This record gives sequence, C-alpha cells and structure tokens, in this order.
Amino acid sequence: MRILLVNPNSTVSMTEKAAQAARRVVRPGTEVVAATPAGSPPSIQGFFDVAMCLPGLLAEIARNPEADAVVIACFDDTGLDAARAMVEVPVLGIGEAAFHAASMLSCRFSVVTTLRRSVPGIEANLVRYGLAARCGRVRSTEIPVLHLERGDPATTGRIADEIRHAIDEDGAEAIVLGCAGMTDLMDGLSARFGLPVIDGVTCAVAFAEALVAVGARTSKVGGYATPIRAGAAE
Amino acid sequence: MRILLVNPNSTVSMTEKAAQAARRVVRPGTEVVAATPAGSPPSIQGFFDVAMCLPGLLAEIARNPEADAVVIACFDDTGLDAARAMVEVPVLGIGEAAFHAASMLSCRFSVVTTLRRSVPGIEANLVRYGLAARCGRVRSTEIPVLHLERGDPATTGRIADEIRHAIDEDGAEAIVLGCAGMTDLMDGLSARFGLPVIDGVTCAVAFAEALVAVGARTSKVGGYATPIRAGAAE
Amino acid sequence: MRILLVNPNSTVSMTEKAAQAARRVVRPGTEVVAATPAGSPPSIQGFFDVAMCLPGLLAEIARNPEADAVVIACFDDTGLDAARAMVEVPVLGIGEAAFHAASMLSCRFSVVTTLRRSVPGIEANLVRYGLAARCGRVRSTEIPVLHLERGDPATTGRIADEIRHAIDEDGAEAIVLGCAGMTDLMDGLSARFGLPVIDGVTCAVAFAEALVAVGARTSKVGGYATPIRAGAAE
Amino acid sequence: MRILLVNPNSTVSMTEKAAQAARRVVRPGTEVVAATPAGSPPSIQGFFDVAMCLPGLLAEIARNPEADAVVIACFDDTGLDAARAMVEVPVLGIGEAAFHAASMLSCRFSVVTTLRRSVPGIEANLVRYGLAARCGRVRSTEIPVLHLERGDPATTGRIADEIRHAIDEDGAEAIVLGCAGMTDLMDGLSARFGLPVIDGVTCAVAFAEALVAVGARTSKVGGYATPIRAGAAE
Amino acid sequence: MRILLVNPNSTVSMTEKAAQAARRVVRPGTEVVAATPAGSPPSIQGFFDVAMCLPGLLAEIARNPEADAVVIACFDDTGLDAARAMVEVPVLGIGEAAFHAASMLSCRFSVVTTLRRSVPGIEANLVRYGLAARCGRVRSTEIPVLHLERGDPATTGRIADEIRHAIDEDGAEAIVLGCAGMTDLMDGLSARFGLPVIDGVTCAVAFAEALVAVGARTSKVGGYATPIRAGAAE
Amino acid sequence: MRILLVNPNSTVSMTEKAAQAARRVVRPGTEVVAATPAGSPPSIQGFFDVAMCLPGLLAEIARNPEADAVVIACFDDTGLDAARAMVEVPVLGIGEAAFHAASMLSCRFSVVTTLRRSVPGIEANLVRYGLAARCGRVRSTEIPVLHLERGDPATTGRIADEIRHAIDEDGAEAIVLGCAGMTDLMDGLSARFGLPVIDGVTCAVAFAEALVAVGARTSKVGGYATPIRAGAAE
Repeated sequence: MRILLVNPNSTVSMTEKAAQAARRVVRPGTEVVAATPAGSPPSIQGFFDVAMCLPGLLAEIARNPEADAVVIACFDDTGLDAARAMVEVPVLGIGEAAFHAASMLSCRFSVVTTLRRSVPGIEANLVRYGLAARCGRVRSTEIPVLHLERGDPATTGRIADEIRHAIDEDGAEAIVLGCAGMTDLMDGLSARFGLPVIDGVTCAVAFAEALVAVGARTSKVGGYATPIRAGAAE
Repeated sequence: MRILLVNPNSTVSMTEKAAQAARRVVRPGTEVVAATPAGSPPSIQGFFDVAMCLPGLLAEIARNPEADAVVIACFDDTGLDAARAMVEVPVLGIGEAAFHAASMLSCRFSVVTTLRRSVPGIEANLVRYGLAARCGRVRSTEIPVLHLERGDPATTGRIADEIRHAIDEDGAEAIVLGCAGMTDLMDGLSARFGLPVIDGVTCAVAFAEALVAVGARTSKVGGYATPIRAGAAE
Repeated sequence: MRILLVNPNSTVSMTEKAAQAARRVVRPGTEVVAATPAGSPPSIQGFFDVAMCLPGLLAEIARNPEADAVVIACFDDTGLDAARAMVEVPVLGIGEAAFHAASMLSCRFSVVTTLRRSVPGIEANLVRYGLAARCGRVRSTEIPVLHLERGDPATTGRIADEIRHAIDEDGAEAIVLGCAGMTDLMDGLSARFGLPVIDGVTCAVAFAEALVAVGARTSKVGGYATPIRAGAAE
Repeated sequence: MRILLVNPNSTVSMTEKAAQAARRVVRPGTEVVAATPAGSPPSIQGFFDVAMCLPGLLAEIARNPEADAVVIACFDDTGLDAARAMVEVPVLGIGEAAFHAASMLSCRFSVVTTLRRSVPGIEANLVRYGLAARCGRVRSTEIPVLHLERGDPATTGRIADEIRHAIDEDGAEAIVLGCAGMTDLMDGLSARFGLPVIDGVTCAVAFAEALVAVGARTSKVGGYATPIRAGAAE
Repeated sequence: MRILLVNPNSTVSMTEKAAQAARRVVRPGTEVVAATPAGSPPSIQGFFDVAMCLPGLLAEIARNPEADAVVIACFDDTGLDAARAMVEVPVLGIGEAAFHAASMLSCRFSVVTTLRRSVPGIEANLVRYGLAARCGRVRSTEIPVLHLERGDPATTGRIADEIRHAIDEDGAEAIVLGCAGMTDLMDGLSARFGLPVIDGVTCAVAFAEALVAVGARTSKVGGYATPIRAGAAE
Repeated sequence: MRILLVNPNSTVSMTEKAAQAARRVVRPGTEVVAATPAGSPPSIQGFFDVAMCLPGLLAEIARNPEADAVVIACFDDTGLDAARAMVEVPVLGIGEAAFHAASMLSCRFSVVTTLRRSVPGIEANLVRYGLAARCGRVRSTEIPVLHLERGDPATTGRIADEIRHAIDEDGAEAIVLGCAGMTDLMDGLSARFGLPVIDGVTCAVAFAEALVAVGARTSKVGGYATPIRAGAAE
C-alpha cells in the first residue's frame, strides 16, 4: 500500500526525519511517499502558522490521489478535518495517533512539546478528540521547533526534565512527544525513564496501515462529506 | 471606533446583509468596515470550505491594521484563533458571540443551522468554548447557505419547524441562528415564538464595541502570542 | 438607556467605586443608576452572606422597573437567576461577564479573589455557566473584601503574587479579578503583567449595553419564566 | 437523635406529609422536628421562589440549634449551601439525597418533577453535585406543586406517563420523584413499574441518621466555614 | 436487619478491623456478618488483585442469601457491579459510600490511599460514579496495604503529610481515607486537622441501613438485571 | 509476530468466527493464536458474566507468555486492566479498538449492541476511555449474544433498524458493532448504509500489530505495574 506522509511546514529536513522514522516501522510492501509543500512557513508554532500551512498541505493531498492513506506529520494535526473531507481514504494526524496509542498503553499520559504558544492548540485537540480525560498535562519546554533539528544535547536535557516532572507531578504513566521533530528521541527516552515515550509519526503510519488493512474508509456522512463545488449542489 | 467586519466567503450580498445588520445596532460614531475576500469559496459549508477561506480572511485583516476590533462574520468562527494571534485588538466570531449572548439570556439554547455537514464544526466550537453544556442541540435544516439569500418563504418555514422541535424536545429557552445569512430573520422569529432568537452578527459587533469600551485587548501571552517570523526568534 | 447597577452588600463605598468604573465606560446617553440595599451584610464572603443579601437585592430591582438592563455588582453573581426570573430586560452578573470577556480574549484565564471561603461558590458558577473549562484555577489571596477599600499597598502586592503564580503554574493568559472591590486595580495590573487583567463591573455594564442595543431580552420560557403569584396559576 | 426537617415553603400540609414519611423510616429514638417558616411563598416553583424562601428557612434552622442534623425538604435543595455554612451538624437536601440514593441502586436514573420552570434549577444542582452524569433526563409533568396536595388521580397518571418515557427513552433504571409533595406516591409507583421509584424525604432523613451515626460533621474549612460577623474578622 | 460485610481479600485481621468499626455505628438490632473469602490474595493493590478477588467475593455473597444489604469492604469497590446484578438488596462499596458522604459534608474532598498503582482504579471509579468533579486529587502514600496492619507511627505520619498537602494544594475541605485498613485512623486525624476525615466502612454500613430503612432495592432493569443462566433465556 | 486472541466466553464457534476475521486482515508472518477458556459462561451479557469470565481469561493469557500482543475478543473489554497489569506487551480490547478506529474515521459514532443489560458497561467503558464525547448513543437490539451465531435474517434486520435510527437521530457518521458475534456483518452493513460499520475484532488485531511494529509496550509505571506477589514487596 502507499501512504502519503505530508509535513505541513516547508522544512525538508523535518520531512526526511519523519519519513525515515515511518519507513522503519511499515510492513514490507508499504511505500511511504513524503511530501513537503513549498510555500509553507518553516515551522508551525501556534495558530497563525497552522492557518498559513493549510493551502499547501491540502494541495499536496490533492496532488496524490492514489494514496491508500494520508498522515499529516505535524503534532497540531494541521488541517486534519479539511483533509478528511477531501478524500475517502483514512487520514491520521500524528498528534491524534499518539494520543490514541498512549491511551491503549497507560492509564494516563502527559505531553511534552516545544513552545508555550503551541499548548492551547494541543489542548483543544485533546478536548475535541475526547482524550483530554486521559492526559495529565501538556507541558512546554520553550525549545523552538527548528532547534530540535540541531541535535543539541541541552535540548534533550530540557525535554528529559519535563518528562521527570510529568511522572512525578501529573501521575503520567506514558509520555507523548509533542513535535514531529522529536521522533528520533523516542527510543533513548523510553529506555532512560522506563516507560512508553511515544512518537506520533510512527504510530500514525502504523495505525494508517491498520485501518487500510481492515478496509476502513473515512465517513462521507456528516462532517467529512465531500465538499460541494461552487455552483453545484446548492 | 472602527470595527472590521470580514465575511470569510466571497458572496458580497452576504457581506452586505451582515454589514447592514451591524450598522443598525452600533453606537453613534462607530464605523463598520465590511470586507469580502476575493478568492474565497462562495459559501462555507463544512471543514474544507473553512480551510480554503483562511488565506483570504487573514489577508483582509492584515489589510486593515487600523481597526479597533475585528468581527469574523461566519458562524463557524472561521480562523478565529489565527486572527487573534495576528492582532492585539479584540477579535470575535459571530458563532461565539451568539453562544455567549444566549448563555446570558437563557438557561439553555439550541442552534438552528444550514446543512448537516456543518454541525460537527459548530459542536466542536461549543466544546472548545466551554459552552456545549449550555446548548441543547445543534440542528440542521438542510438549507444550503446561498438559498438563504433568495428569501424563499419555504426556507423560513423549515427554520421555524426546527425551532419548534428545539423548544419541545431540547428544552431550549433561546434559539441561536446558525448562519450569517439568517440575520434578517431574527426579529420575526423572536416575535413568532416568544423567546430570544439570536443572531450572531449583531451580538458580535455589540460585544466588540463593549470590549473596546472597557479597554480590553487580546492576550499576547500563550496561544495568541504574536507569530514568530521565519528567521527571527527560532 | 438606563442601567441599574445593584451592589448586593450594604457598603456604599463599594457601590460608589463600582458606579464610577461603570460610568467611565458607558456610551454617551447611558445613565448608570447605582443602588445599595440598606439591610444587607456589609460584604459577601461565602454562601451565607449570599443568601442574606437576596431579599434586599431583589427589592432594589423591583424598585427600579424602568431599567433597560440590570447589573449585579458582586462577583458571586448573587441572585442572578432569581433576578432574571423577575424582569424581562437583560440581567448580568459581574462574575459571569468577566468570565465571558476573558473567554473572548484568551485561551485560558485564572481568577484571583479574596477569601478561600468564596472559592467554591465561584467554582460552582463557572461550572454552571460552562466556562470552568476555560479557567485554570480560582485562587484566593486571603484578603477580606473590606480591606480592599483601604488602599493598602500590601493588598495589591498579595494580588500580584497570585497573578504571577497563575501565569506560571496555571498557564493563565488572562486574569479575572474576583471581587467588585478590585475594580480600580485593573489598569495597573494589566500594565504590570502585560496581559488582560479583567474587571467584571466594566465588562458587565458594557455587555448590558450591547444586549440592549441588539434588542435582546431575557427568555421567559423555562427557568426564567415570570413567577406565578400565590393563588394565581396553580 | 433529633432531626430538624424544614419545609422551605409555607404550606403546612406539605410539611406534615413530609414529616409523616420521615417518621415512618427513622430508627427508634430519633425525633423528627418539622418546621414551616411563616412568611415563605406557598410553593417553590423556580428560582425566584427559591430566593424568597431563604430568610425564613435559615431562621428556622437558627431557631433549632439543638438539632443533630438538618434536612431541607424541598427538591430544589433550597439554601443548602447557606445552611451548611450556618451549622456544624450534617445538612442534607432531599434532592441531593435522592440523587445519591439512586446512584447507589441503579446505573442511570431520571427525575420526574412538576413544572418546566423548575427543570433548570434541578439540572444545575445535578451538575454541581457531580451526579448529572448519572441522570438520563429531568422531565416535567406540568403539574403545579400544590395540585399534588389534592390527590387527583389524573395527577398520578401524568407522572406515570413520564416514568414510562424515562424507562423507554432515557434508559432510566430508577426514577427520582422531583417534589416533596410526591412522597406518598413512591410505593405505588415502585410496584407498578418494577424498579426503584425514589423519594428524597425518606432518603434524606435516613442518610442524615447515617451521617450522625458515623460521627460526621460538616466541614468548616473552605466554602462552609462559619460566617464572619460584620465588624469581626475583617 | 442483617448486613453482610465482605472483605474481598483474605487477610482476616482486616476483616475484623472493618467489622469492629461497622459494629460501633450500626443501630441496635442490626447484625453485621463479616466474611473473608479463603482463596483471595492477601491484599488488593491494583487491577490484577481486583480481578483475582472476584470469584471468592461473589461466592461469599451467594453463600449469604438472607442478608438485607451487602457492603464490599475494599476501597476499590471490587466487584460492585457484579454483586448488584446478583442480588435484589442494596449493595454498597466502601469507596463509593465515602465519596457520597464527603460530597454531602464538603464542597471538595481529596483521597489519601496506599500505593500509586491503586490510584487509576480509584480515579476510574470516581469518574464512573460522577463524583470526580467533587474530588481534588487522589493521593498515594506508597504505604503497602498490609503495613497498615502493623500500627507503625511512621505510617500515620506519612498519611498526615498527604492530608496536609491535600488541604493546602487541592483545596480539600474533607479527606477520604482510601483503604479499609485505615478505618481506625479516622477519629485521630479528624481531630488533628479539624475537618472531616472519612472512613468508607462506617459510611457504607450506615448508608446500607438507611437504604434498607427506606425500603430501597437494587434496580433489576438494565445493567443490574438478574443474570441469565446458560441455556435459559437466550 | 504472534497475537493471542482470547475469547473470554466458552463458546468455541465465537472464537472461531473472531479468529477467521482476524486472520483475514493480519500482515504476512503474523500468527493469530485463538484461545477459549473452558470454564467461562457461554456468553457475556452484563456485569456478572464479565466477573465470572475473568479467571479463565487471565489464565489463558498466563498460558501464552510468548505472545507479542494480546487481544481480548469481547466487546465489554473484559479484564482489560488486569490483563495489562499481567504482561508487558500491548493488550487491546475489541470495544476499545473499535471506539478508537471510529474516532479516526468520523466525527461521531453510535454503538449497536445486543441486550439492554450490556449498555451500562459499554457506556462506562466509553467514559473511562474518554471517548464518550465521540459517541452519540449506545443502542441495544435485544438480540441475545448466542442468537447471532444462528445467522437468522431477522437478526440482521433488527441491527439494521438500529443503525438507521442512529444515523437519523444520533447524528452518527459511523457505526460500531457492539458484539464480537457481529464481526461477519461488517461488510454487508457498510455497503448497505454507505458509511463505516466497524467491527472491533479486526481493528484490535490490526492496531495490536501496529503497536508491536512501533515497539510500544504497556506502561509498568502506575496502574499497570507488575502485580506484587503475596509475601514479596509488602
């Protein structure tokens, strides 16, 4: 099967990191097609960036009609509802996938993300999905998204500090890494803290495969109904 | 003061109807500047249309930096979070304003909107704002947005039917009209049913004046912090 | 238009401070009629005081039938439901108004109030209104209500301390001042902390004007139906 | 032990009916002292009546300082918070007691009450207590409170109709009778429908005995702290 | 009347402590029949122990068909739903009873229990019962259940520390002791902290008496319907 | 990889149907090991049956320590928490998996299950998982579980009727089939109604594969910590 992995921002190194993570976990025969829209902001840090990424993101999805499933590789789940309305195949966001995975592995998880400005959007998603009840807290590290690309050890230390607080103060039993750029930290942090540290990219790709395998399609009744072209149905 | 009223879709007659309604209620000295983005879809019916309206909507806001407040004249509150991140003045959506007004006039309200496909987005907004607890039900009439522009009496009859169901079945004590195109029906339906039938356009404009009058500004700490320009802070 | 501003407690200096704040923000032509019931407790600090203020408060409302709107100037929103059942014009509480305003200016707010004993009543209101989801925490300063009348700088310092905790620990993006007696601190604290510090008195008066401007009335269907006089309908 | 049973309204026949029901269930040695405030409205039908009953109700409680527990015999739980602040012994409302009992006997209950105008207050109580999650629906019969005193068979028929709807449509497994005046219908309706039909008066009195038996007292820390007399602590 | 008090674990000293506490509070004429299943784990610390206790617990209930009410004396309310399906008399869990009692004595309570591993089960119960809204926090002391049997003063000190945190940080106005083995600490801790410290065993037994006194029965409609024997109804 | 599929009840034909469904969707190289405990009830219809199935279910899991993941093939997610505490590999319930899948394919789903007595347990699970917010209603058909094994067309008609109600009355955009015995109806009903009709068995198996593929493990910190053997840690 073919899975379209769209990074909504325009930073190609982030797309590449996500695609590599995805390819490590897919089943034989699954092709991961990675896409980066040209005109988007270089990173998504808050509601304005989310909005500015939408046209490029949705254009990439339109450009790949043969995909068996779509994964949106930004932790804000940028444009997830609009993308679902566009296509009939399953569409998953990496934030959403990580929350669902954490809910099946622990009684309570916390999220560790980048900047404080991104926290309300993530919290709003959790409420929307219903999974806020499973989340102890969404914590920010004040690390800008693109700093994650530099591999600075202080960055990992800052993330580890928040994981420690989440375990001690939130009662977190699992940690969700709240940025696509943190994908490569999953294994090291899981080992260090002895609990599931979950990356949304791999979860989303694997769940997308699962939904394709069972023959599931996005509902076209209600909120995700195919858009009415101007001049047509109304 | 100057209030920018942006209709996110491209149908000028809807903008005009909203602007007229707004001008009837503002205080002397308030100027309502109405804007219609050129490239948007003609109506917003679901998540895809919401996403496609965002660039035009945000561009109109950027083009009017001297506004003392911004009102987004679509019941989905299209781009509300992104708009708040862009400016320091108050920004209100008409859906949001209607929900707040209804909460101060009744114990429970129901919403009567256009198509079923628009219901999940409105419900998601209610949950996000916290006001879902005050809403009995979001009801659709299956009237497309642009049909409202034609003044067909059958249209009003269909809306009245759902209002009746809302009163009888949902325990609704007030009704929120769930589309900017229904603005002109408020007075007639209020009189007919003997309870508040609330239009978001007038509420949003009047609340915007109120927030300007008390000197309130959009918070720039957290989710609505000023966007970081690429190459700057990160 | 004429707005009746009732201070439910019997401390005239509090009524005066609230009325002054109200008069600074109303539109030309709006008259603020301030009322203080004679027999009420001097301040409202907890559920018992709320109950003891009700007869005097409701009598003041009955005494002013020509008001176009009523504002209840106590942060507990004392008697709000009963007052709405009495009249057809809009009735607003200052607590409620501040919560609605804060919800339109920020993703999350915290409340800073006087005594711990007042916290559960405020929390119950937030749940009732549906806006508990938007509130990080209701914080008490252990400053009795009437101490606020003395202008002691230590008092402001104590309030500022809690605002700092709210920003750092609750993720608050705006602050609601939880007592009518804090009205005069709004501007100074907003400037000091660089985020909206919201006073309910001005918000309630301005929202009352807004609701009158749009022609809104309190619903008389359901919970706010006109009371049945003894010997009449039953 | 001595239990004070206060009927907040001034209809003595309702007090007597409640006291009789209470005396049937108490343990040997428990004295039920029934009180009816003189100046209250004859029945409580909505928020305004609730407010007007408070002074008389609280005066009756003050007049009976030797009570080991207090039961407020109105389904709105009129003045429950204020009464708890006044005394150190347990104070129970009959609405509250019925909800707690129903929660321990069934997975979900519905309430059948008198007039539609009383529904929002009952719903607000359920939310406040946390037990809204256990309630299918609060249903009104449009029977005024004092009609219940007349023993009209049509009245019971109307209540039975709503019980049937509650079982079929709400998934109710138990029914809470939503008025002190329905106390005498409990046994007949339980037998007729084959499920628990719960009356709050008997539950409240029996739970009050239980709390006294275990030595429980109302908390004086926080919301129910002893009121500060004017001129004292502040 | 006869109340069956089943301790789901196999530690007889815990059963005895609970039975003694129960017998101190019951009315004259009430017999407390205490039961300890032979094959259960010695203590219940988490979900696995809960499951392993069920057969023995339910067998003890089946062995005592003449009981007028059943109390399950483990704070996890082990097997509460299954026990209710088995019998027609009231069945109460001690966790549930303590939560209901605390809700009638305070605006907010916190729970102080044994091990962290037991916290999610208690939290899930609170959500299920609807009373999570009334609970500030479920706190663990890291004291294993059977250590409570040894009367070590350090144990009480550890519990007292968490009570102090609950009052200061959670806004707790009452404390629920989260283990049947803490029953004997109730009086001392109540006196020490000056607020209700609630033990579920005594509350459950007294509430069971109350429900029997009012003639209440477990609903047999819906979730607690009598089980269908294999080969019978299906 | 090896996935252990345990049917908690003792009806081998149900195990076989579930195993066949599972084997149709797994990736090449995945082995589905199906297990049926000998001493369990023949079907699970309510809380009592759930409890009686636990020892057999957990024994089957203990007997298969080499499984890479465990799927519990009963829609009540029987013993899910206890099973997670027993092992380190991922454990999924078919109810849970179906809810998560439906949440990623639609804005709102409804459940169509067998008997009314099973509804409260399913609703409790939805609340526990956090996904109650995504569910319109849990509907019963009054078809006993084992009737599903007979392939009676009237059975399918009854299920189809409830699906129609769910679409029209609940706003359902997807349907979750609420019993392992309905697995074979998924494709026909999806085609008939033109929306996703979701079976938990296939979803759970595919999600289990996904979680194994990404290297996820059940958290051993907190609620799912490895049980303490008697005589050991305490």
